[in-house]
Amino acid sequence: MKVLVIGATGTIGAAVAKLLETNHEVLGASHTRSMMTVDLAVPDSIRRLYADVGPVDAVVSAAGDGVFRPLLALSDADFALCLSNKLMGQVNLVRFGVDLVTDGGSFTLTTGILSRQPMPGSAAISIANAGLEGFVRAAALELPRGIRINAVAPGWVRETLVAMKMDPAIGMPAAQVAETYVRSVEESMTGQILDTGTGTG
Amino acid sequence: MKVLVIGATGTIGAAVAKLLETNHEVLGASHTRSMMTVDLAVPDSIRRLYADVGPVDAVVSAAGDGVFRPLLALSDADFALCLSNKLMGQVNLVRFGVDLVTDGGSFTLTTGILSRQPMPGSAAISIANAGLEGFVRAAALELPRGIRINAVAPGWVRETLVAMKMDPAIGMPAAQVAETYVRSVEESMTGQILDTGTGTG
Repeated sequence: MKVLVIGATGTIGAAVAKLLETNHEVLGASHTRSMMTVDLAVPDSIRRLYADVGPVDAVVSAAGDGVFRPLLALSDADFALCLSNKLMGQVNLVRFGVDLVTDGGSFTLTTGILSRQPMPGSAAISIANAGLEGFVRAAALELPRGIRINAVAPGWVRETLVAMKMDPAIGMPAAQVAETYVRSVEESMTGQILDTGTGTG
Repeated sequence: MKVLVIGATGTIGAAVAKLLETNHEVLGASHTRSMMTVDLAVPDSIRRLYADVGPVDAVVSAAGDGVFRPLLALSDADFALCLSNKLMGQVNLVRFGVDLVTDGGSFTLTTGILSRQPMPGSAAISIANAGLEGFVRAAALELPRGIRINAVAPGWVRETLVAMKMDPAIGMPAAQVAETYVRSVEESMTGQILDTGTGTG
């Protein structure tokens, strides 16, 4: 398969791209540092990316910015960023890409456990993640030509915890998280929110 | 208690206001046809409403517009309306109202079963409902002074089905739906998505 990976230079996206390359042709795009760049918050940027890429069999998004901040300190702009980037950015990857995905192809988006397991500071991200999960369940009913859609909800990633100088023991290595993305691309499920579990599970 | 009901002239909102009036002082606001008007999509409109109303013990929202349309026919504007009105409009009712709600008071918002039980045409509304549910779970962890927050997820309402010339048998009368809103106001739960069940249940 020919697979477009958005967020290909991130911790998860790079691991997904590497694992997919075992069996597939991978095209990587990201906000920066890639051959192809895309800004999820800018609809025309997504349209330009697809025009450059052409037909693909699968689109995987491991991208989407959000703001982690106490509820009463979150600004209008913080909410707007979460909605335009992580939420609508990934929704628009589907809307603008559907005509370029081959019959029986797939979209795999990234949500996160904060949709269902929030923590103080997560309100705006929880909205984006939960909204995206609602979209995946709904869009699966209407995508044409057998095109599938799922979202992966990663828990804490070990490499991220190390970078944040937090205890890595509760995290799962990115290479292991990537396996769930590959399952979404290669298997037949649709409309699913795929939890990766935790590194301690 | 003094309870502000937003959407007080709608099918559900009017039933909630009527039921609350048995034991509480009710202030009604809506987009039109009320003593007090508010446009959920306009943040300053919400701020003005709260400035007029002053302190309240509970805020109940039975408001929020959305667009029901096939996935591939939904426009950028359709998604934006669902996000700015039903989703962020109700989120902003909490953000801008929190300082005016008394200690131990509550917010009760309206989501809907399409968040978890989508149907063709519901993608944009499913995003708004699911996002709102994510917000309720997250905000409950951070609201100050014992303030609670829940969302009611009504199923089909009998009066709405009659107005749409659909089979009313699967709907629940608005007066019965209203009981779940009153439970959110009067009982002690927080962070909950309260299903009303169906009229046939």
